[in-house]
Amino acid sequence: MRGQENEAGTDLARVKFEPDDIEVFVPKGTTIAKAAFAAGCGVEMPCGGMGTCGKCRVHAVGKLSELDSSEKRLLSAEALAEGMRLACRAKIEGDAVVEVPVASRSIVQKILSGGITRDVHVAPAVQKIYVELPKPTLADERGEFERLAAGLMMYDIEAQIGVPMARDLPKILRAADYKVTAVVSEDWVIAVEPGNTARHNYGVAFDIGSTTIAGYLIDVNTGHELEVASVMNPQMAYGDDLVSRINFAMTEPRGLGMLRDSLLDALNRVVRQLVENQGVDQNSVYEVTIVGNTCMTHIFLGLDITTLGVSPYVPTMCGQMTLRGEEAGLEVNSGARVHVLPNVAGFVGSDLVGVVLSVLREDDKRTRLAVDVGTNGEMALQHNGRLYACSAAAGPAFEGARITYGMRGSVGAID
Amino acid sequence: MRGQENEAGTDLARVKFEPDDIEVFVPKGTTIAKAAFAAGCGVEMPCGGMGTCGKCRVHAVGKLSELDSSEKRLLSAEALAEGMRLACRAKIEGDAVVEVPVASRSIVQKILSGGITRDVHVAPAVQKIYVELPKPTLADERGEFERLAAGLMMYDIEAQIGVPMARDLPKILRAADYKVTAVVSEDWVIAVEPGNTARHNYGVAFDIGSTTIAGYLIDVNTGHELEVASVMNPQMAYGDDLVSRINFAMTEPRGLGMLRDSLLDALNRVVRQLVENQGVDQNSVYEVTIVGNTCMTHIFLGLDITTLGVSPYVPTMCGQMTLRGEEAGLEVNSGARVHVLPNVAGFVGSDLVGVVLSVLREDDKRTRLAVDVGTNGEMALQHNGRLYACSAAAGPAFEGARITYGMRGSVGAID
Repeated sequence: MRGQENEAGTDLARVKFEPDDIEVFVPKGTTIAKAAFAAGCGVEMPCGGMGTCGKCRVHAVGKLSELDSSEKRLLSAEALAEGMRLACRAKIEGDAVVEVPVASRSIVQKILSGGITRDVHVAPAVQKIYVELPKPTLADERGEFERLAAGLMMYDIEAQIGVPMARDLPKILRAADYKVTAVVSEDWVIAVEPGNTARHNYGVAFDIGSTTIAGYLIDVNTGHELEVASVMNPQMAYGDDLVSRINFAMTEPRGLGMLRDSLLDALNRVVRQLVENQGVDQNSVYEVTIVGNTCMTHIFLGLDITTLGVSPYVPTMCGQMTLRGEEAGLEVNSGARVHVLPNVAGFVGSDLVGVVLSVLREDDKRTRLAVDVGTNGEMALQHNGRLYACSAAAGPAFEGARITYGMRGSVGAID
Repeated sequence: MRGQENEAGTDLARVKFEPDDIEVFVPKGTTIAKAAFAAGCGVEMPCGGMGTCGKCRVHAVGKLSELDSSEKRLLSAEALAEGMRLACRAKIEGDAVVEVPVASRSIVQKILSGGITRDVHVAPAVQKIYVELPKPTLADERGEFERLAAGLMMYDIEAQIGVPMARDLPKILRAADYKVTAVVSEDWVIAVEPGNTARHNYGVAFDIGSTTIAGYLIDVNTGHELEVASVMNPQMAYGDDLVSRINFAMTEPRGLGMLRDSLLDALNRVVRQLVENQGVDQNSVYEVTIVGNTCMTHIFLGLDITTLGVSPYVPTMCGQMTLRGEEAGLEVNSGARVHVLPNVAGFVGSDLVGVVLSVLREDDKRTRLAVDVGTNGEMALQHNGRLYACSAAAGPAFEGARITYGMRGSVGAID
């Protein structure tokens, strides 16, 4: 969302956050707190944004809503004179600049990103194969691709190629003196690199939650997890729960695009964090796996979510989708395979499918229950060889959204 | 090519042709005749552009080359005073306006587009299937696509869908009250239309020659050819033979893109002619088959052709490629399947593969020779169960290009 232009005719306002120097565009009427989430510089709100604790004070100038009763009650005359506002109460009515004091900054939330592990057999879908190919001569006039395909045949690969990769192939082969590493996924040549780069083969797994987005960098050759990173889902600016975001997409003509842009921006921020921390080249990420609730994966794919907002709450589709890195809008290898795991129903998403694949086993005859508690809580019960699944809004109870008790999983929640 | 902007730093000139009111951009130094080909309003040149017959006189104003010796010899003092030039001699040096008198207009060439036919079994790759689907209810919460897929299952189709089609699906289904026609190609749903449109199912077959582009509109349901149309290949402006065009792509940085743009422009002109003459909707064209020499199919796909210009003359690839109508840049259904037939080698293209598929038969033990005479002439010999192929430049001998005798296949060639 950062860098998005404020177009005439839309009801967006520009908000600058100091000292981070981050600008975001949000619909007028958005609270400063939500805008701060969108900017990735969250504000501490122990009361869950109910206007009861007064901990989210920020310094704000620009077009803002009038002081409300909570602000008058919780901010001192001195604070008011300095231009202090409560981020959960004050709304953006036009362009504004907000300074978040250190005391009001939310400590990065603790997302459970490690835990009990079990050994898995590593059989990577993306293979990297180094080949040295014979150069073209008058006695060997095969095409550039046929030359590469013959080299890959030795590894039992029946190579196929798409138009974008074919366009670059001759230049890459000639510049590398026909010594190249082919990156192959299900017989498709998705990238060709000069020299031997077989060692560098990375994947990213994403769990897109309504509140938090977690990303994991995996060394695909070994199966090892190298790095974890998470950010707040910037769509918080358009509603804390799914139904508010679906409403936003139903009422604002560019709504779905805005939700998708803000999501892609966050996913790419996670990718950058992951690869920078490990000194990995973004172009060496050839596979991405995405799970999330049905609404999040729909937004990621740019699919209509309006049918999810009205009874009988049907999704556009449940099946697995695979697209190229470039098509998906992710800053990974342009030919990377981006897999979005299948959903079960409108409100039972691929995140639960991921849980089931990880912890439940077909050959296990025990009765077992898998619970995935997030803003939406989902459960899968394995019993007598069948699987049953359901979901319900769980976030409010734990996170204090719109109810008096509960708070997010940050410092102070348990200690 | 029409409508292309003349960018600073490139050596292009704008030429306007009257009375057709068509503008084209061509490299400076291009003859008026070639520019006229590019504009699709060809000039009669019985001598093949050698400057010996004087039949290609046009009225031209603007930045043009000096009169050359042929023009001085063949144009009367009166004609010179009126601003007459020979289109095959006068070169565009900057922006110019050219008027082609009726007497100098080339009659549309006669391209052999009919002939002996034989019956073939029609088994269309693109099927249209009308379905009436149950609407979503609280008792039937399947996804929109799963609903359609269940309907198609009755026809033994295991439906798959791509992201662009999935984005439009819910709106189409709901607006059509779940009574729709699915367009299916190899299990992929490439389009969904409201109501029953199964009767309208069209394909276009293209033969892209170096000189002429021929297109055939086919009713895919019946296999009947409905219409034929042809245009001059506007790449003539960048060289009459393949080698000149490859040189153009090697020396001009945007060369390949310009060759591709001019080709797409011509292909789309043919599509428009075909569908307009038959009153068919362009969006009802779901399949396109393309044959051409290796260089032409490479240009169509935007593949590197520079390796075709230097020994050992290897292509980027020979295999068959299939892309979506939108990716291909063709004005047909955006999800249409565009098949480019495979090539044999750098100078034995898919046009010969098409000939072989049409006239030679695996089960035929006779020795037979198939000859495809175009600007490049190609032959395929079937003997003792093997196929042999070769090619040579044939156009000059028949068409008078750069040699004294011969002319194009237009009025006067045989009569």
